[in-house]
Amino acid sequence: MLGIDPGTRATGYGFIEGRRPAPGLAYRLIECGVVRPRGTDLPGRLVDIHTAALELIDRLEPTCVAIESAFYGRNARTALVLGHARGVLVLAAALRGLPVHEYAPREVKKRVVGTGAASKEQVGFMVKHHLRLGEAPHPADAADGCAVALCHLLAGPLP
Amino acid sequence: MLGIDPGTRATGYGFIEGRRPAPGLAYRLIECGVVRPRGTDLPGRLVDIHTAALELIDRLEPTCVAIESAFYGRNARTALVLGHARGVLVLAAALRGLPVHEYAPREVKKRVVGTGAASKEQVGFMVKHHLRLGEAPHPADAADGCAVALCHLLAGPLP
Repeated sequence: MLGIDPGTRATGYGFIEGRRPAPGLAYRLIECGVVRPRGTDLPGRLVDIHTAALELIDRLEPTCVAIESAFYGRNARTALVLGHARGVLVLAAALRGLPVHEYAPREVKKRVVGTGAASKEQVGFMVKHHLRLGEAPHPADAADGCAVALCHLLAGPLP
Repeated sequence: MLGIDPGTRATGYGFIEGRRPAPGLAYRLIECGVVRPRGTDLPGRLVDIHTAALELIDRLEPTCVAIESAFYGRNARTALVLGHARGVLVLAAALRGLPVHEYAPREVKKRVVGTGAASKEQVGFMVKHHLRLGEAPHPADAADGCAVALCHLLAGPLP
């Protein structure tokens, strides 16, 4: 289960094993991290983001992808630019034939932390808790990617 | 010179020869049309749009791509969805190593028609005029794609 928190500057991801080893046991974090595109212009950054997403999918072989949607409350210009990054991420999953699930930021926080208004720190703390980690994944974008994956896993019986 | 007017439902394009055969003569329209994705969900539509763009680029072999940017005045949700379509179009050009030029809708109208507030009909009429066509390209999305290409060609000495 690959969770992605998209951004044009930093895209966080978390790959979490989709089944608990036994009832009551924790989900297992396999890998998390942040994609920071190096391109100096938007086209170059979109190539970096798309290529990194394909590499992650081909290496980790998730069965589905969960991706955070955007605040619609943000201004239209911000939403447009973020839409570009989300577009090439969703495209990568779709080109590999994977189902794509979308979750609003509030829904991710509500499912993982219990409140849609949770802070970055609270998200990191609860990701650490759900995955039984020694500390929260860092940077925060990586924890956000894990939170999106956890949101999907906590939402239903099967990943 | 490939001009693109992006949209999630219909993406117009126009491929126009980048050099006038002689001073005073018209630019030549090679092909124009509309890409209508058939996918039933956003991921499927993004694959359709991206695949169609790659096919156009590989077949027509443009030296650069001009793409219309969006109205920032639209609401954030509309801008986000449009951003997805633009993202996979810009990605297609960037993956093929083509420079991508962006023009705001007002700039396209101003350059092609003479006023940034031109109507769809005026754009079609002036595209017909610039390309010495018997009638305006239709549907209007195809004419809009031609207008974006013309905007770029009219903007500078070289395509």
